[in-house]
Amino acid sequence: MSDARIEPRTLKGFRDYLPEVMLPRERIIDVARQVFRSYGFSPIDTPALEYLDILVGKGSAETDKQLYRFQDHGGRDVGLRFDLTVPLARFAAQHLSQIGTPFKRYHIATVWRGENTQRGRYREFMQCDFDTIGTRSPAADIETILVVHDLMRAIGFERFTIRVNDRTVLNGLLQQVGLAEQSTAVLRALDKLGKIGAEKVADEMQSVAGATAAQAKQVLQLVQLAGGNDDVLAQLETLVADSELGKAGVARLHEVLAGVDAVLQKGRVRLDVSIARGLDYYTGLVLETTLDELPDIGSVCSGGRYDNLAELYTKQQLPGIGASLGLDRLLAAMEELKMIKPVRTPAEVFVPYFDATRLGDYLRLAGRLRSAGIGVEVYPDCTKLGKQLQYADRRGFRIALVAGEREFAAGECQVKDLASGQSTTAPLADEAVALIAEIQRILAT
Amino acid sequence: MSDARIEPRTLKGFRDYLPEVMLPRERIIDVARQVFRSYGFSPIDTPALEYLDILVGKGSAETDKQLYRFQDHGGRDVGLRFDLTVPLARFAAQHLSQIGTPFKRYHIATVWRGENTQRGRYREFMQCDFDTIGTRSPAADIETILVVHDLMRAIGFERFTIRVNDRTVLNGLLQQVGLAEQSTAVLRALDKLGKIGAEKVADEMQSVAGATAAQAKQVLQLVQLAGGNDDVLAQLETLVADSELGKAGVARLHEVLAGVDAVLQKGRVRLDVSIARGLDYYTGLVLETTLDELPDIGSVCSGGRYDNLAELYTKQQLPGIGASLGLDRLLAAMEELKMIKPVRTPAEVFVPYFDATRLGDYLRLAGRLRSAGIGVEVYPDCTKLGKQLQYADRRGFRIALVAGEREFAAGECQVKDLASGQSTTAPLADEAVALIAEIQRILAT
Repeated sequence: MSDARIEPRTLKGFRDYLPEVMLPRERIIDVARQVFRSYGFSPIDTPALEYLDILVGKGSAETDKQLYRFQDHGGRDVGLRFDLTVPLARFAAQHLSQIGTPFKRYHIATVWRGENTQRGRYREFMQCDFDTIGTRSPAADIETILVVHDLMRAIGFERFTIRVNDRTVLNGLLQQVGLAEQSTAVLRALDKLGKIGAEKVADEMQSVAGATAAQAKQVLQLVQLAGGNDDVLAQLETLVADSELGKAGVARLHEVLAGVDAVLQKGRVRLDVSIARGLDYYTGLVLETTLDELPDIGSVCSGGRYDNLAELYTKQQLPGIGASLGLDRLLAAMEELKMIKPVRTPAEVFVPYFDATRLGDYLRLAGRLRSAGIGVEVYPDCTKLGKQLQYADRRGFRIALVAGEREFAAGECQVKDLASGQSTTAPLADEAVALIAEIQRILAT
Repeated sequence: MSDARIEPRTLKGFRDYLPEVMLPRERIIDVARQVFRSYGFSPIDTPALEYLDILVGKGSAETDKQLYRFQDHGGRDVGLRFDLTVPLARFAAQHLSQIGTPFKRYHIATVWRGENTQRGRYREFMQCDFDTIGTRSPAADIETILVVHDLMRAIGFERFTIRVNDRTVLNGLLQQVGLAEQSTAVLRALDKLGKIGAEKVADEMQSVAGATAAQAKQVLQLVQLAGGNDDVLAQLETLVADSELGKAGVARLHEVLAGVDAVLQKGRVRLDVSIARGLDYYTGLVLETTLDELPDIGSVCSGGRYDNLAELYTKQQLPGIGASLGLDRLLAAMEELKMIKPVRTPAEVFVPYFDATRLGDYLRLAGRLRSAGIGVEVYPDCTKLGKQLQYADRRGFRIALVAGEREFAAGECQVKDLASGQSTTAPLADEAVALIAEIQRILAT
């Protein structure tokens, strides 16, 4: 066997998730799921593999190039999904009569892109999307913002800002200054404002989008408006006064911000006219979420409104709005902000197995605690207590329950707080109620 | 656009999961995760794509043939994982020094096999595995059985049987009757006992495995032993009395069954000498789980002990034991047993939006209920109440909260039980405590 041994390794751009990484990931995914569900978003799933023609030409030239594609056993051209929006569009078109509208779904799943790994990008990552389709109502825009808010709070963030804008306002201004035809290139340049600054954005608008210096100045004047939401709205109204489109956008922003203000504390949601989102398909509200303590990492939750999700697959118009949680970026931020406790086990309590005649007792004790909702690991090998307690420390258990012949004879066990090092004693009688109370007391500290 | 429209469709053998299918799936996966965690199993994840040499030749000739394989952008030969055991072996070998042993992990993830779809098989499905590696202790065998038991109970089953056997007993007998060399073929034949009956199994042992009629008879005599666990153990002891291996297997079964009996009710775990499990790599305990009301669907949770998980990738010996929940089979059974309530929304409460001036009130009310742990969907479009209530019915909401100008003026709302059709009225004052109590009362019925 030894000469045929294969080197255990993962592909470039791919990675294993060890327990210490996977535990916080699962927690955030759980929280996201709970928040989505609490608003009535339902889970769906779609295949990882799709017909190639479903995927090609739906993102950008870049996503086409990055697509993992091949022929399957039946000679079909297939590809691995590169996002969850194209599969949603295909899904909605295919099942429309069955799902009906409005349709609210979340989808938490893996996607693949053959990205350049030198930029620190992975080729396999998880997306965490929610969308409401089949409605143009501002209520859906407001709700999307509320979901993002609840999500951030539930994950544990207090200091964050949801930045919103409306593409219609930008498009109105572009129309007004004569740049409607070049809007895609102009918006792409604008999207870089935070990264490269106003001067370079003005240069790009001229060199790439073909704007004049005066046009670029007008656009930049609008996106650099500052102040409270009401202030900015008033200034916007003046700036786009000659554009019906622009005025409609301002009115919509008014309505959405008023709805949000009816529910959330002031200042949480900020009108930021510089938010454009690079993606072509947004047509209304766009939003980004930044962490006040780490503004430089960029948006951790972004999205927007689109006019027609599934036009490539069906005649029926499907407007909607959605957003996506940037799981990896969020986890990196939480790590940096020390919001993640290093732990390598999902169970709180460790039971060493060091009296060979007492396996049944250890197992019964563990079962009783599990019935009370406490996670318990029993060490599988009957070895020295010291070695087992070292293992418990390394894994990050919070409590060890030590019981040998002496303790069982006395009808009790030692409760070792592995964080403080202190030990107490608790009786095992009466279904271990006193022990359970003691464990819960320690876990609450 | 219309002439370039693409037919929305999924690949043969692949499927979309709609909310009504996905909701019970997510519930079972959640339950499984909770049970695994309560025993200290940690989550891990591995890439969907692996180097081809990691995957090829690890399952059987069939899995090799069914492998989705291709060249990636860097010209590497890659494949999509076909199970979670091969990735675990690779993972364990690669990260052994970091993870340490004993190592308990669960892994719930998608795998792909280019199966023949005519047999009703899918080419993409989810596996739900848990394993304890790095120990040969019977305590780990016992715990594996306890996890399966708790899992089945937590999912909602009361009438099920966990059937166990030990490969060592079978191997001891095969040695004793002179069939040690042909054990793989003999065990494969035995695995079909439930499906094709004793006579055909005897035929196959002779035609495929090259056994004599007398040898086949001896093997069948052993696997057809019946009676209570203690009875069967006593008979086994006699039958394999001339084989050290067989006697060691019987002693191990004794120990494992005694451990299980110390915790579980009698009869839940049955020694069934006919259980062989087709897979080559099992070397000790093997287990299957059958539903007493639907024995014909086969095992819904199966597994066993293996001697050396990662021998293809590392010199270090990694014995272990694990099992896998058959999610699709289990869901099919639950459907048949009417254990799944048809529902298309994860939220319980529906709030129609039919007074255009009250959007803020609807949103605040929904927010208050969510803070109390109640899922609430607010309809996004301000339309006729009747249409919205039809939508609520179709989606399967349990309660609708109806509040228009009159109700808001009176500081109350109507609570419509959509199952019974009955309505009550509850005040909105005091953070809606009375309303929340009324909702909880209806949800509890």
